[in-house]
Amino acid sequence: MSLSVYEKEAIVAMEKRYRATFVNSLSGFKSANLLGTSDTNQQTNLCIVSSAFHLGASPALMGVIIRPDTVPRDTLENIRATGFYTLNHVQKEMIVAAHQTSARYPHDISEFDQVGLTPLWREKFSAPFVQEAAIRLGLILREEHTMAINGTHLLVGEIIEAHVPDSCVSKDGFVDIEQAGTVALSGLDCYHTSSRVGRLSYAKPDCQPEWLD
Amino acid sequence: MSLSVYEKEAIVAMEKRYRATFVNSLSGFKSANLLGTSDTNQQTNLCIVSSAFHLGASPALMGVIIRPDTVPRDTLENIRATGFYTLNHVQKEMIVAAHQTSARYPHDISEFDQVGLTPLWREKFSAPFVQEAAIRLGLILREEHTMAINGTHLLVGEIIEAHVPDSCVSKDGFVDIEQAGTVALSGLDCYHTSSRVGRLSYAKPDCQPEWLD
Repeated sequence: MSLSVYEKEAIVAMEKRYRATFVNSLSGFKSANLLGTSDTNQQTNLCIVSSAFHLGASPALMGVIIRPDTVPRDTLENIRATGFYTLNHVQKEMIVAAHQTSARYPHDISEFDQVGLTPLWREKFSAPFVQEAAIRLGLILREEHTMAINGTHLLVGEIIEAHVPDSCVSKDGFVDIEQAGTVALSGLDCYHTSSRVGRLSYAKPDCQPEWLD
Repeated sequence: MSLSVYEKEAIVAMEKRYRATFVNSLSGFKSANLLGTSDTNQQTNLCIVSSAFHLGASPALMGVIIRPDTVPRDTLENIRATGFYTLNHVQKEMIVAAHQTSARYPHDISEFDQVGLTPLWREKFSAPFVQEAAIRLGLILREEHTMAINGTHLLVGEIIEAHVPDSCVSKDGFVDIEQAGTVALSGLDCYHTSSRVGRLSYAKPDCQPEWLD
């Protein structure tokens, strides 16, 4: 298998769009979530994010990266104004609608209406969930960090509610997101379904991990 | 499909290990990378991480989350001491070896030896790559943030070399990580291969995205 080494200078020299596509592919598979927000007048906003990641279990924290130059600023402004946001897993049948939320719609247009997804409101929670999503998380903003090197924002949110299908929760707490239909992303625009290889037992020195299934 | 809503109080009340397994499942699919480091005496360290994520293309940046209480501190100390680290995609045939790197070996034991993976050294680069990985990244630490809420560290690294199989690079810069054999993770311990649904065109208001393949 022939392999190329791209050094820093070669990456810098790439055409801008080529570089964005290339570098976005390098981290590995990404989560696919719809981020739901609202302004203080209940004008809703929805955008797909591939940057949600686990940050801690106690308290239950999730990080999400917001780039002011690529994502409509509505999302960031809404989160700062209300403190609330939702993350909703993208499933196979929602891929095209979810992807379309990345189009740059004006502030007074709700992506829910444009792409045909349904806002779900919960009591005392100032951001819309996505009705169609099997797994939904409601978060409160706890912390914000700005990367000095490129101005990108890390939002740290605490999960204050999680909606999960009962059939997907194992005895030990594992949530089978593959069974829930959750898809994965790679690069900027490639969607994937998954096939479970298996779960491995907790690793200890001097013994091999075992397949749990 | 019956669905349960887990509110904050229910998550807090979960048994510790159950909660870790549950909350780790909620972000969606995760990347699977082997993080390679070395101390200043070339004592190598390797550990699997599911927290590597894209942070920017220009400069090419990647974030990785290090939890001092769960990951051996060797990794963090090595990165701080040398400034260098590598991320190497996990492929299907390496899953068991990769998972085993999460066992708590003493500092003077190299996970490379214990799990049967091969360190690959590159000139002027003070961290080992994983020879067996199809896609490998060499990074320099650029920035570090500590989460006030739980003490977790975000390391921001710049990609200064990327090793990518030529057959996986598309004309537009997209890297087909599925073809490279890269796997995805869910929860703490579940490994998945992927099946491409397809790539979608750049989304614009007033027109539907098209499948590119």
